Amino acid sequence: MSKRQLHLGAILTGVGTDQQEWLHPEIPGNASIDIDWYKQQARAAEAARFDFVFIVDSPYITPDSAPHFLNRLEPLTLLSALAGATDKIGLVATLTTSYTEPFNVARQFASLDHISQGRAGWNVVTTGLEGAAGNFGLEQHIDHGERYRRAREHVQVVQGLWDSYEDDAFPRDKAHKQFLDPAKQHRLDHRGEFFSVTGPLNISRSAQGQPVIFQAGISESGRRLAADIAEGIFAGVDNFEDAREYYADIKRRAAEAGRDPALVLLFPGITPIIADTDEQAQALQRQRDGELDLNKALVQLGRPFSYHDFKQYDLDAPFPELGELGSNGYRGHAERIKRVASEQGLTLRETALRFARPFSGFAGSALTVANEIERWFLEGAVDGFNIHVGAPSEFARFTDEVLPILRERGLFRSEYQASTLRGHLGIDVPHNRHSETHAPLRVAS
Amino acid sequence: MSKRQLHLGAILTGVGTDQQEWLHPEIPGNASIDIDWYKQQARAAEAARFDFVFIVDSPYITPDSAPHFLNRLEPLTLLSALAGATDKIGLVATLTTSYTEPFNVARQFASLDHISQGRAGWNVVTTGLEGAAGNFGLEQHIDHGERYRRAREHVQVVQGLWDSYEDDAFPRDKAHKQFLDPAKQHRLDHRGEFFSVTGPLNISRSAQGQPVIFQAGISESGRRLAADIAEGIFAGVDNFEDAREYYADIKRRAAEAGRDPALVLLFPGITPIIADTDEQAQALQRQRDGELDLNKALVQLGRPFSYHDFKQYDLDAPFPELGELGSNGYRGHAERIKRVASEQGLTLRETALRFARPFSGFAGSALTVANEIERWFLEGAVDGFNIHVGAPSEFARFTDEVLPILRERGLFRSEYQASTLRGHLGIDVPHNRHSETHAPLRVAS
Repeated sequence: MSKRQLHLGAILTGVGTDQQEWLHPEIPGNASIDIDWYKQQARAAEAARFDFVFIVDSPYITPDSAPHFLNRLEPLTLLSALAGATDKIGLVATLTTSYTEPFNVARQFASLDHISQGRAGWNVVTTGLEGAAGNFGLEQHIDHGERYRRAREHVQVVQGLWDSYEDDAFPRDKAHKQFLDPAKQHRLDHRGEFFSVTGPLNISRSAQGQPVIFQAGISESGRRLAADIAEGIFAGVDNFEDAREYYADIKRRAAEAGRDPALVLLFPGITPIIADTDEQAQALQRQRDGELDLNKALVQLGRPFSYHDFKQYDLDAPFPELGELGSNGYRGHAERIKRVASEQGLTLRETALRFARPFSGFAGSALTVANEIERWFLEGAVDGFNIHVGAPSEFARFTDEVLPILRERGLFRSEYQASTLRGHLGIDVPHNRHSETHAPLRVAS
Repeated sequence: MSKRQLHLGAILTGVGTDQQEWLHPEIPGNASIDIDWYKQQARAAEAARFDFVFIVDSPYITPDSAPHFLNRLEPLTLLSALAGATDKIGLVATLTTSYTEPFNVARQFASLDHISQGRAGWNVVTTGLEGAAGNFGLEQHIDHGERYRRAREHVQVVQGLWDSYEDDAFPRDKAHKQFLDPAKQHRLDHRGEFFSVTGPLNISRSAQGQPVIFQAGISESGRRLAADIAEGIFAGVDNFEDAREYYADIKRRAAEAGRDPALVLLFPGITPIIADTDEQAQALQRQRDGELDLNKALVQLGRPFSYHDFKQYDLDAPFPELGELGSNGYRGHAERIKRVASEQGLTLRETALRFARPFSGFAGSALTVANEIERWFLEGAVDGFNIHVGAPSEFARFTDEVLPILRERGLFRSEYQASTLRGHLGIDVPHNRHSETHAPLRVAS
């Protein structure tokens, strides 16, 4: 396959990350804690030859949190369980750098990477919800700028620990009773602003060398971090123009950082709505928007602003002036909401309804959705998409009706050509910093 | 089953926790990072109706560490993967309280407990190796006394978080659009010496209420902690008399703490050596002892003393005077070695060889081993054993030859009578502190 290939992730969210998806008749109320539900969805994504499944995360809830966040499986244990229920598909878990120890994170992802024979990915987040601080002994959430500096150093430490052993460190020679070649075990001896970590890590590299790094930065600090360290980027999008601006910006920043932009892949999250005709899909979309509960939409709107209470404002006045609010939470999301509300002159009610449902620019017949995906892909807005997986019948419309069109156009694989996540994405196996051969290894794909 | 039942755990250790087990021809050199090896062993233990598999752990290595510790899967990811490969057997993971956040620990164990439908257990340790501090940003390992105070508070926080939701907190009523009953979600609002944790945890209780707490305290602080919080106790033993003293001591302390001693179960770890006759088993044991590499035995001896270098001493002089050395490491183990060496007047060489191999009081024909197990069980030394699983053919001798004798005597199950770990152990489902019904629920067994 020499033609540039589309990459697809499947976001598995149990009962759904918004306030109303759990009401769908096909979705069992306990989906977010039911490993069998996840296995079924991961297998469906694997049968459709997706690159990876993707698990979102957040370590803080209130009684108003969306159903999925209230009661759910933890990403690393969940993906370790899915590893045995799948063979080829990548397994990407979200984990915060703000409230974890790099040694423990390095170890668990490396272990998942072995358990899955080289299919692990880490979506690096800094945690946008200020309330999380209270679950980890802090009076106040770590400041936005500090969170990003900490994230950068955290990932640097984790990647350093992942290289603790050269690939031939273990002769395991029973005849000569030599298990380890001690010259090929390396301490890290890192001392930085936030972390001091001696190492070595007690686990070797996997079939793909190291887990793949994902990130989803939208704010200025977030974009810088994504461009510097991410191999896959998962960010929300609002429309084609914004996506293309974001894509160009990240690729430019990556190039400026001395990286090959072709190896920094962008997959925004979308929730396609597919029906027999465009009209039916749009009607379905209008119906869903009409079912929105305004109170829940206001709660959802408050989330990027650390659950700010929007019920205190006049619903039909312009979106309120919030000052710095949101700047220490999901800053990028908060800035986007403020900007869209201001540019489009939205009231609070309109803003809440506008952001209560995921971006749905992909509503139409299978052909329309396939065309739109192709346009975004060919016109420099994306390298692929992260598809929200909700009701099985809706995901099946995507896999059974949209994917065949994309395959016919040579844009998406019919069979896996590799067995690791790096292999699916066509990105390098990172060179071990301690080894003598210095050429990076490109995975055959 | 009204007769008191023996409980059995299977310690899965990949290539083995000592310096030479990996040389066994049946054990592949990569066993400790091979999920299929673990699956095979867990399935063998489940086929033999063991109560649980048990994973030891330690977050610090040197080039001299035993092969299993050098390169191994992390316990929680490993057991999450084993959950799908087994149906009934309990899954007990070791995790330190010294270098983890209670919120993350509570979440991962609760998730494992859901993934396995109520089979999770947590072996609480404080980490005996002083070098671990360097992997977690500390100049010095946390002091022994402080470690145990921290462990106690850590477990208290984790158990509090596990009760965040009452069992009927989720009506999941689609008709009335009510997912959560917010009155049944509870914050913890813990503020203690080491931790401040607001909660609530974002996952509900499982089929067994909460994961089972294991501990292995030998030192004074360790025994106190074990008696106060543990439901299963896994500690090394040296001989029948010591085991009986330890058993009586723990049960007495548990009673003094207001607990039912019958619900605090002791399972020391043993490595049976089974042959067709007692003479053959003893010959095998002598052969293994003879194969010991003295240098490696000295390294192994140093481990409880934070890898103290014993090579500097005269091998044939009495075991050296070490002062306080070891008191901030594996204090209980270190004290035991000092005591045995002193009481028996051992040289350093003899001490190293004595402790380089696990206690092997269970060497003999299947009948002899079964008799010895029965004696320990009936004469107040144990509630069961944690059996070291090494070479498959050796474990098979235990399951296929010893267990049928114990079953014939009505001491061990032929079939599982329950599907949770608490059910196998016959211990209570802990009452949720926020619920109205106050009678503890005893699992049917």
